[in-house]
Amino acid sequence: MTTTPAEQAAMRRALKLAATPGVPLGPNPRVGCVLLDADGAEIAEGFHRGAGTPHAEVAALTEAGEAARGATAVVSLEPCNHTGRTGPCVEALIEAGVRRVVFAQRDPNPVAAGGAEALRAAGVEVEAGVMASVARGVNRAWTFAVEHERPFVTWKFATTLDGRSAAADGTSRWISGTDARRDTHALRAECDVLMVGTGTVLVDDPQLTVRDEVDHPVAHQPLRVVMGEREVPAASRIFEGPGEARHLTTRDPARALAQLHEDGRRHVWLEGGPTLAAAFLRADLVDEVIAYVAPTFLGAGASAVGDLGITTIGDQLRWHLKRAAVIGTGADATVRLTLTPTGDS
Amino acid sequence: MTTTPAEQAAMRRALKLAATPGVPLGPNPRVGCVLLDADGAEIAEGFHRGAGTPHAEVAALTEAGEAARGATAVVSLEPCNHTGRTGPCVEALIEAGVRRVVFAQRDPNPVAAGGAEALRAAGVEVEAGVMASVARGVNRAWTFAVEHERPFVTWKFATTLDGRSAAADGTSRWISGTDARRDTHALRAECDVLMVGTGTVLVDDPQLTVRDEVDHPVAHQPLRVVMGEREVPAASRIFEGPGEARHLTTRDPARALAQLHEDGRRHVWLEGGPTLAAAFLRADLVDEVIAYVAPTFLGAGASAVGDLGITTIGDQLRWHLKRAAVIGTGADATVRLTLTPTGDS
Ligand SMILES: NC(=O)c1ccc[n+]([C@@H]2O[C@H](COP(=O)([O-])OP(=O)(O)OC[C@H]3O[C@@H](n4cnc5c(N)ncnc54)[C@H](OP(=O)(O)O)[C@@H]3O)[C@@H](O)[C@H]2O)c1
Ligand SMILES: NC(=O)c1ccc[n+]([C@@H]2O[C@H](COP(=O)([O-])OP(=O)(O)OC[C@H]3O[C@@H](n4cnc5c(N)ncnc54)[C@H](OP(=O)(O)O)[C@@H]3O)[C@@H](O)[C@H]2O)c1
Repeated sequence: MTTTPAEQAAMRRALKLAATPGVPLGPNPRVGCVLLDADGAEIAEGFHRGAGTPHAEVAALTEAGEAARGATAVVSLEPCNHTGRTGPCVEALIEAGVRRVVFAQRDPNPVAAGGAEALRAAGVEVEAGVMASVARGVNRAWTFAVEHERPFVTWKFATTLDGRSAAADGTSRWISGTDARRDTHALRAECDVLMVGTGTVLVDDPQLTVRDEVDHPVAHQPLRVVMGEREVPAASRIFEGPGEARHLTTRDPARALAQLHEDGRRHVWLEGGPTLAAAFLRADLVDEVIAYVAPTFLGAGASAVGDLGITTIGDQLRWHLKRAAVIGTGADATVRLTLTPTGDS
Repeated sequence: MTTTPAEQAAMRRALKLAATPGVPLGPNPRVGCVLLDADGAEIAEGFHRGAGTPHAEVAALTEAGEAARGATAVVSLEPCNHTGRTGPCVEALIEAGVRRVVFAQRDPNPVAAGGAEALRAAGVEVEAGVMASVARGVNRAWTFAVEHERPFVTWKFATTLDGRSAAADGTSRWISGTDARRDTHALRAECDVLMVGTGTVLVDDPQLTVRDEVDHPVAHQPLRVVMGEREVPAASRIFEGPGEARHLTTRDPARALAQLHEDGRRHVWLEGGPTLAAAFLRADLVDEVIAYVAPTFLGAGASAVGDLGITTIGDQLRWHLKRAAVIGTGADATVRLTLTPTGDS
């Protein structure tokens, strides 16, 4: 690959634009684009602001106008080649007279792929794969979902050091500290579905919204889902605004994920409880675990995870410890562990 | 406090000597001593090698001989003032003609204390408390034991992330990785008692020795103790060599600790199981927790800790998270948490 220092700097900027906070997640990837003139000076930039809005390339081209002629487009994802709600970016780039395209991640979506080939066929110079792994990271869940044709599932739970998710009398507020709960809200905001089982709705009646540092709901709320066959009261707090909520009356994790994928959802944040989490683990449908381990002991009470059908130590489910971080300080400190499937790096 | 740079350097050296690895622990503190001449040059040094051997000051004075006259003695602990198996150090220092004594930690032992006053009364210049907190750290368990008149208790356990210490069929080897087990042996070596309940001896029949990196027993083994009223087979591996072992036929944690303290033991490493650990927690006789949390799930099996009589979340036992460290790498990685009582720093 041969890229100029100006193109590399532009790619770093495009990746930063892609990851602009507050962009509502949804069926589309996050993309950033920077246009450079022949001297490597920036002409314009753009990023995708969510489903139904212009793609990053089109946003940048619009800003540039005539100046785009002869320019180099630096994009964090291969320009799309299909006509979605906004028309293919490949066509827009060719029409605008762009001379060269440098992109990071290849489009994993077979429907949208082929952008590089189409550009080359039109005489545009193409450089692919620049900082591709960073770009994959920006759209981690989306890439997984496109490749596996189902949403990426993060199972989050809070537990005492002796593995309890609630005390004997059912109370569970709070096991982890204030900072850990704030951390949870920041991570929830990165997902497009928040899911719990009927058990948790019936016992805890959670709101399941994403709230900011001063405990106000943020503007874009993920879809809230309660899963299980029992009825839950229509007055449950999960059905209150802001944001959408839905009851999936199934016990089949694969079916639930298929329905959510169909609906354009790419990242499910599974918040338990123990029974539903165990069902996802048994179905091998958990892709990441976020565990908040509090430095506390209960000695009795509900387990952090329900029965997994495991009876002997050799069969324990082993995960890869990707990260351990202390969240909060002093009396509020909790350990956050991030686990990935063994075999992943 | 006024100390010279040479004295400060000598104190750092004395603290290093005190912490010389391989010194058998026991009823005595670890102490290091450096003798300096009038120009601040080192004349001699010494450290205490365990009960029945010369104290650090005496070891250094012996090495120095006549050169000790007019010297400055830099010691990590206040020189003792009582006649134990080796005679008081205060007397030896005066007799040798030492002009000035700089020490770190005050002797917390009322029997041995008063060294500073006795030295001053004999016309020796005394500087107390230099790097005292570092010195306290070197003799952390010993200091605690002397101040509280019972051994310091570290409860160590290994657990899955869902709080299981064994699978449903009773198997528990291994929950944590090879590196975590090696880490455990290194920490066991810092204690002078390794303790388990009768349940663990009857089920696991552990050897409970300290072994080195190549799994060979180290030279100095802590006392191994099994606690509980049931008989345990005389052929249990805990009673095999090397090192001593003892059965304390009591269920009273305070009584067991009193007996061990009487016997000169200062640091108990409590390795469970869950029932005995719960008994110590309930009696408020755990001073530190070392938990190895493996990134694994069992979903069923024995709990990491037995019943604590706690029924509601507000009553959970809250500890201070002092440290979180990842032990081992890749598939072998385990998280080690160090907890101290809330209120401690
Ligand atoms: N510490 C934490 O992180 C945390 C998080 C959440 C909840 N909790 C605690 O967990 C407790 C609730 O526990 P829970 O286990 O009842 O909650 P849950 O896992 O949210 O709900 C369990 C219910 O989900 C339904 N379900 C859906 N798919 C299923 C499947 N494949 N297999 C089995 N059941 C399925 C079943 O109900 P149907 O009969 O309706 O199908 C089942 O009874 C509360 O005390 C709450 O405080 C703790
Ligand atoms: N994961 C780990 O870190 C770890 C560590 C150790 C053991 N384990 C597992 O733990 C299991 C054994 O569990 P356990 O709880 O039976 O072992 P335990 O705690 O070692 O032994 C329990 C026994 O200790 C005696 N005991 C002494 N003082 C007591 C008191 N104040 N209160 C209650 N009992 C007292 C009682 O027996 P008497 O009737 O004789 O008085 C009691 O039955 C094994 O499966 C082993 O693998 C796991």
